[in-house]
Amino acid sequence: MTDSTHYDLVIIGSGSGNSLVTPDLENSRTAVVDRGSGSRASFGGTCLNVGCIPTKMFVYTAEVAQTVRDAGRFGIDATLDGVRWRDVRDRIFGRIDPISDGGLAYRRDADHTEAYLGSARFVGERELEVEITLPGGRHEVGSVQRISGDQVVVATGSRPRVPQVIADSGVPFSTSDDVMRIDELPASMVIVGGGVIAAEFAHVFSALGVRVSVVTRTGRLLRALDAELSQAFTDLARTRWDVHTDAEPQAVRRGGEGVELDLADGTVVTGELLLVATGRVPNSDGLGLDAAGVRVREDGRVEVDEHGRTSAPGVWALGDVSSPHQLKHVANHEARVVAHNLVHPDALQSFDHRYVPAAVFTDPQVATVGLTEDEARERGHDVTTKTQRYGDVAYGWAMEDTTGLFKVVADRRTGQLLGAHAMGPHSSSLIQPLIQALSLGGPTGPLTVSQLARGQYWIHPALSEVVENALLGLEVAPYRDATADYDPEGEAS
Amino acid sequence: MTDSTHYDLVIIGSGSGNSLVTPDLENSRTAVVDRGSGSRASFGGTCLNVGCIPTKMFVYTAEVAQTVRDAGRFGIDATLDGVRWRDVRDRIFGRIDPISDGGLAYRRDADHTEAYLGSARFVGERELEVEITLPGGRHEVGSVQRISGDQVVVATGSRPRVPQVIADSGVPFSTSDDVMRIDELPASMVIVGGGVIAAEFAHVFSALGVRVSVVTRTGRLLRALDAELSQAFTDLARTRWDVHTDAEPQAVRRGGEGVELDLADGTVVTGELLLVATGRVPNSDGLGLDAAGVRVREDGRVEVDEHGRTSAPGVWALGDVSSPHQLKHVANHEARVVAHNLVHPDALQSFDHRYVPAAVFTDPQVATVGLTEDEARERGHDVTTKTQRYGDVAYGWAMEDTTGLFKVVADRRTGQLLGAHAMGPHSSSLIQPLIQALSLGGPTGPLTVSQLARGQYWIHPALSEVVENALLGLEVAPYRDATADYDPEGEAS
Repeated sequence: MTDSTHYDLVIIGSGSGNSLVTPDLENSRTAVVDRGSGSRASFGGTCLNVGCIPTKMFVYTAEVAQTVRDAGRFGIDATLDGVRWRDVRDRIFGRIDPISDGGLAYRRDADHTEAYLGSARFVGERELEVEITLPGGRHEVGSVQRISGDQVVVATGSRPRVPQVIADSGVPFSTSDDVMRIDELPASMVIVGGGVIAAEFAHVFSALGVRVSVVTRTGRLLRALDAELSQAFTDLARTRWDVHTDAEPQAVRRGGEGVELDLADGTVVTGELLLVATGRVPNSDGLGLDAAGVRVREDGRVEVDEHGRTSAPGVWALGDVSSPHQLKHVANHEARVVAHNLVHPDALQSFDHRYVPAAVFTDPQVATVGLTEDEARERGHDVTTKTQRYGDVAYGWAMEDTTGLFKVVADRRTGQLLGAHAMGPHSSSLIQPLIQALSLGGPTGPLTVSQLARGQYWIHPALSEVVENALLGLEVAPYRDATADYDPEGEAS
Repeated sequence: MTDSTHYDLVIIGSGSGNSLVTPDLENSRTAVVDRGSGSRASFGGTCLNVGCIPTKMFVYTAEVAQTVRDAGRFGIDATLDGVRWRDVRDRIFGRIDPISDGGLAYRRDADHTEAYLGSARFVGERELEVEITLPGGRHEVGSVQRISGDQVVVATGSRPRVPQVIADSGVPFSTSDDVMRIDELPASMVIVGGGVIAAEFAHVFSALGVRVSVVTRTGRLLRALDAELSQAFTDLARTRWDVHTDAEPQAVRRGGEGVELDLADGTVVTGELLLVATGRVPNSDGLGLDAAGVRVREDGRVEVDEHGRTSAPGVWALGDVSSPHQLKHVANHEARVVAHNLVHPDALQSFDHRYVPAAVFTDPQVATVGLTEDEARERGHDVTTKTQRYGDVAYGWAMEDTTGLFKVVADRRTGQLLGAHAMGPHSSSLIQPLIQALSLGGPTGPLTVSQLARGQYWIHPALSEVVENALLGLEVAPYRDATADYDPEGEAS
């Protein structure tokens, strides 16, 4: 144990927390603590190392494989000769790992910053012990460093949740933390979970040739989505994967192709590899938050106010460990707000959680923002919705798309947009004008769906016409420029 | 010659003109005249039959072929076994031709409308003769029908321009009117022209395996674009096609692989098929517009005011024959305005040509809206620009993109967005939030680029982050929520 080292700022977690060191703070003495992922010093957090970034690289690669398989439909004869899994993996982590390592070196070697690779634990107010668990920093593995800060930010993120029946079974399993680094593609895989992570990996691995089973306790996949879209996605998923809904593993054991799961209805599901994707828990435990006077909510998230302040003076939190949204773009936003607040205590900014969009990079891609149809009804809106098929606009035609849907939800009386929910190619980008409309409004307040549809050009025949036509399909008062009903022949010509 | 038939409304041209028959007009007696394309009764106009719609279907098919060729880069081994050109062609026109035929039948057979398949010519004020040239309508081929209307709309569109040296040569050539219906893919093709149509067909045919040469009199391809983007596209094109800039054919003859062109510098360019793509001329000639009292501009466009009125009372014009923009989304907008104005003479609406976006569905896809950098400087703005590489945002990374650029132009002093110019995947959809910002503004007038970047969420890691990061790269006053400089590590994580 060395003497305590004091910093202006201690940040626990090197994901979004690491971006707090803005120019405003560059002359402050700052410590960044990270315990890595498994045996690696994975500086940069979940998103960079085991989350959004590598998954999207696999997802795009999976799309390439799928395009090859599907080419014949377009009159292009093509053969998928093989998937070089190790090459795929090494291309991806060959780009990511050096960034992670560089991020660590930058913090470790800069004048005003220090990196601690280990587990932090509060031992008093803004006072921490860090057990060094990984090489790569200045401190010896096994040593315990005591540090303190004028201000401390808890940005420790989240980790995969593992159901008790699997944890207790002793059966080997993967999570998103390691499944992207396996050495060989299995012939088959059982994915437990029905949310975002399950849907993305089911797409990736099935497109790369793995036979995929999905087991989820919910009645639909992606059940947080608008019900119509969630149902459509589930129906489609059943045509591609072996999907078991309303199903929880009762017992898990080695057997069959590698792992066997018993479901309540007597079904046995088997696969070579078991992937657990049943959500993520905030990393608020094991931090000694009690000793710091930091309150934790019942759901495990650190309690914060709208400025990112915890219940302990000088201690802040942001990102997955405290946010209602486990999304990188939200964590980045919260980090920008906290970075400001750290140096402007008299002019605090607030988190903006009003219109938080989200996407699922599965197949088809899914995107959502604002109220679902059910939520809009619950709030008493006079709801009108339109679900536009991709295949009924020109570019969707060109893509021979048969499954894409773009749904918009509006208030019939006010013409106000309430939400948008899409399942189809590029929906994560196509939805942006609607995020913008909800967030920023227009010259006279909120934009009506008619203003959105008719107050701007939509390039013909870009895929964005699916958004235009969804908006035009809503039953609201027409925009002043609109000539009564839109001519459906005009849509596709 | 029959007696004259009188209509409430006569529309010449069945493209955007055909969409004028809105519910407001459905009890009016309306005649639609169309002379077709070549020997076919191609009801529905250029876009449906020989323009946007079929080209995009070929473009997407070309992308599929290109993805197969490029798959190895991602660790996916694939072989392009062949392109079934006739199947591609027949799939596409097997969808389009029935729509065209159905549109004709609908007008021909409805109670209040009539379709005339032939060439219309004014013989007096709102008085026309139509020489029937095609079968499929009620009138005998070869007959001349006299019709008149309380109101007449000229929506005759445009046709390919053919340079004199080619027209005079007697050498067979194709234009966009017929090249999509050829029976066999040639081994090689010479495309004369360097604009949108040339760039799209060069992409389509080269991706399908044709060796493509491009000959253009301009110094750059797509020269109407922002100069930086036009240059970048030209540089890239030179790596894919045999590109001859600042070059006009001096002589054209049969020879070589099929056709030979002599350029001024002595180069001889040869190919099996010659495609002429040197722009389009308005179809204002041959209509007897003099007799109708309709003035035509020096550039060949029918002269219209902002409401679509020509110089002759009761005669209107819209679309390619009169518009400053040869774009389907503009023609559709003009048709909506004219449709309104036809029935509301006391409350005329105006064309909105302020922020007209355009896209080129070549490879990479191109999109543009607002002022180019040069235009912004000419107008005296204190110009700041940022050109964001697709490859420097997470999804661009996943796509292994090496060429995509998203450029934004703004006024440094006011922070106002002036224009956006992109070359990269899906740019025609990615640009929509900026079209929206320019066209609709925000709660306090025009949106600043900082408000656009930081006043809304951009889904991570969607491709739309290329737009976010372009906006963030502009040197303007920061948004109130922004924490000084954006952390570049944060961008990709």
